[in-house]
Amino acid sequence: MALFDDIKKEAAETKIASRILAKCSTEIKNRALLAMADQLEAQSEFLSLENAKDLEGGKKKGLSGPLLERLTLTPKRIAAMADGLRQVAALPDPVGEILGIKRLPNGLQVGQMRGPIGVIGIIYESRPNVTADVAGLCIKSGNGVVLRGGSEAIHSNTAIAEILNQAGDAAGLPPCVVNLIKTTDRQAIYELLKMEDSIDLIIPRGGEGLIRTVVEHSRIPVMKHDKGICHTFVDASADIEMAEAICVNAKVQRPSTCNAMETLLVHKEIASVFLPRFAKRLQDAGGEIRACEKTMAILQGNMDAISPATEDDWKTEYLDLTLAVKVLPSLDEAITHITRYGSGHSEAIITNDHSHVTRFLNEVDAAAVFINSSTRFSDGFELGLGAEMGISTSRIHARGPMGLTALTCKKFIILGDGQIRN
Amino acid sequence: MALFDDIKKEAAETKIASRILAKCSTEIKNRALLAMADQLEAQSEFLSLENAKDLEGGKKKGLSGPLLERLTLTPKRIAAMADGLRQVAALPDPVGEILGIKRLPNGLQVGQMRGPIGVIGIIYESRPNVTADVAGLCIKSGNGVVLRGGSEAIHSNTAIAEILNQAGDAAGLPPCVVNLIKTTDRQAIYELLKMEDSIDLIIPRGGEGLIRTVVEHSRIPVMKHDKGICHTFVDASADIEMAEAICVNAKVQRPSTCNAMETLLVHKEIASVFLPRFAKRLQDAGGEIRACEKTMAILQGNMDAISPATEDDWKTEYLDLTLAVKVLPSLDEAITHITRYGSGHSEAIITNDHSHVTRFLNEVDAAAVFINSSTRFSDGFELGLGAEMGISTSRIHARGPMGLTALTCKKFIILGDGQIRN
Repeated sequence: MALFDDIKKEAAETKIASRILAKCSTEIKNRALLAMADQLEAQSEFLSLENAKDLEGGKKKGLSGPLLERLTLTPKRIAAMADGLRQVAALPDPVGEILGIKRLPNGLQVGQMRGPIGVIGIIYESRPNVTADVAGLCIKSGNGVVLRGGSEAIHSNTAIAEILNQAGDAAGLPPCVVNLIKTTDRQAIYELLKMEDSIDLIIPRGGEGLIRTVVEHSRIPVMKHDKGICHTFVDASADIEMAEAICVNAKVQRPSTCNAMETLLVHKEIASVFLPRFAKRLQDAGGEIRACEKTMAILQGNMDAISPATEDDWKTEYLDLTLAVKVLPSLDEAITHITRYGSGHSEAIITNDHSHVTRFLNEVDAAAVFINSSTRFSDGFELGLGAEMGISTSRIHARGPMGLTALTCKKFIILGDGQIRN
Repeated sequence: MALFDDIKKEAAETKIASRILAKCSTEIKNRALLAMADQLEAQSEFLSLENAKDLEGGKKKGLSGPLLERLTLTPKRIAAMADGLRQVAALPDPVGEILGIKRLPNGLQVGQMRGPIGVIGIIYESRPNVTADVAGLCIKSGNGVVLRGGSEAIHSNTAIAEILNQAGDAAGLPPCVVNLIKTTDRQAIYELLKMEDSIDLIIPRGGEGLIRTVVEHSRIPVMKHDKGICHTFVDASADIEMAEAICVNAKVQRPSTCNAMETLLVHKEIASVFLPRFAKRLQDAGGEIRACEKTMAILQGNMDAISPATEDDWKTEYLDLTLAVKVLPSLDEAITHITRYGSGHSEAIITNDHSHVTRFLNEVDAAAVFINSSTRFSDGFELGLGAEMGISTSRIHARGPMGLTALTCKKFIILGDGQIRN
């Protein structure tokens, strides 16, 4: 109990610090970010030693190879963390931006001004670089941050947070702006989710179980960061070469990501020409297909790694080179399939039919809707935001890749010269 | 239990209906809104009869005069409801608006498109006109709506919802788009707050108790609509006449509203000139002052209805002609007072000092910040939004007066011609 009192007290300190940070100049924030970057690199050896403790613990606990790999901090990864902070320093400060001031008939000038949200709570798993990435984005946008990483990375996360805080303090940031929860007790998550007086927004980054727990128990608004069951629909009028290049890219370039294609939908009029070409490319890349009946018939003899799809395949985020494939008679059926099975993440159509472009844009309800391009672009950097806090699958506040402005809120500002209301 | 199963089933139907509504043309939505307005007026007599049942029930339950007054549907109020719907019909449709498409170096064109949030849940008290007002805003923005009004207005609300649904059905809206919860069992609120699969956003409109309950129990994102402890700071450089006119307006014009001034802060250099003038006007209007020591000293002999302020006065939303008054030595202390006691609703400064304008805009953390104007303008209509769903005191999604766009979300749209990721 006393333990959680400490967490509560520290979160309240971060709230107070966030009010000071909200007024910090861009110069101080940038200086702090650059100092943090330098210190992460300068203390690379210390970080590796602390990381080794986590890796040893992980091996003892029997973590899988991929998990241990994600947990590892190599000098290259430490340099990448530092570079991430430098990139954030180079971005424009979103705080103080004034939007759309308009003059009303009574002379009042009404607009909005961006400011920090306050304190952001991040609950995440595994990769320790997240600690530096999200702290950097929060600081630049003027927000305090309460970090709750996974127990498997506690030594690495603690070391990173220590370095960030030392560098931040020296550069003139208020103390406690970056607040890493030190206890690995799972109960601490539930306590955090009740601290609506100190934390203004919760962002869970992790598996489905974590997200469900957070949504169910949080009194604080939550920005979800859900799985991606992404579709690409190859329409009858698609350019075959373009469709082939985009579909291969969406599936093969990095299949373990949430914006990779998981289900390919193909119009029946183009299926017998398109599918054999595409299947060969997928097979060459080591891929495997779960096929609807029509796909099975078309690809018979063309592909070895193919098996009939079950209902479950349409709902699965494989995160590897397995792909579900379905042949459909129309755009309508493609949109119906996406509405039913999609996770609202990223959806694409390859077509040359203008009315189909319009309908796909208007009717597909997802965080990102792509025309004639790869869903792999569903990413803050790739879409020009300059940074990424994650990809929101929530419908309010921010949807899709979240950059710095997604960590701000807008207040109304009203400039008058004596106006009173009648 | 079976009762709540019904509510769950109906909310799921509203979710399905909302997907159809999302694709409805502006023309159909407007036609439905105008038909609803006409029907409310045509069935004015039926509404009055149903309303009489609520009023009778209210009298038996011993509701206060002001509550009974708020509950009453006069022909004039019915006409005002109808006019509200017609005004919403006349507003531009926010659905389908495309924002800021930019071309990236690789040729991708990236922007955002507005669409409905999905289903909005409104939990409200007392005034039955809210039923028509919020239903109209939700329909225009393409959202389904689940309405949970107070038990004291159940007959009036049911009658209004019936009329809206009949008119909507006839105009071609999908059925169940407007879904009024018929049970007055309080437990129904808790059940609603768990229906995250059917409801996308909850907006509570009511007292502090209701809002606290909703925030504590909701698995669904909540837009708060909190009390207004609004300040006006009369700075040393203020134009005395302007300050007097604005402060009288902010307090007296309609003191029962959340955007009325509750605490007046006055710079010590102007206090002895400004306060006696203002106090006279307030006294003439029947007002009363809770004064800090300095204010007491200045107004001694000038005003009868004055008494020393206690700590509680700085925290009180009077909602009538009582005003707390404090004399302060600086802008810094004014901002500190506002940060400590303000509810983040609407705050104003009267000044001619440009650096104070800049600081007030940047440093005061509220939904609406006013320069040289009355906080009474903190309202969707007055600030040019054309409509108002309420005034959000939340920090995410929408802050301040909520118009139609606050009921939408923005998806990314990406227009390519074959781009793949490297």
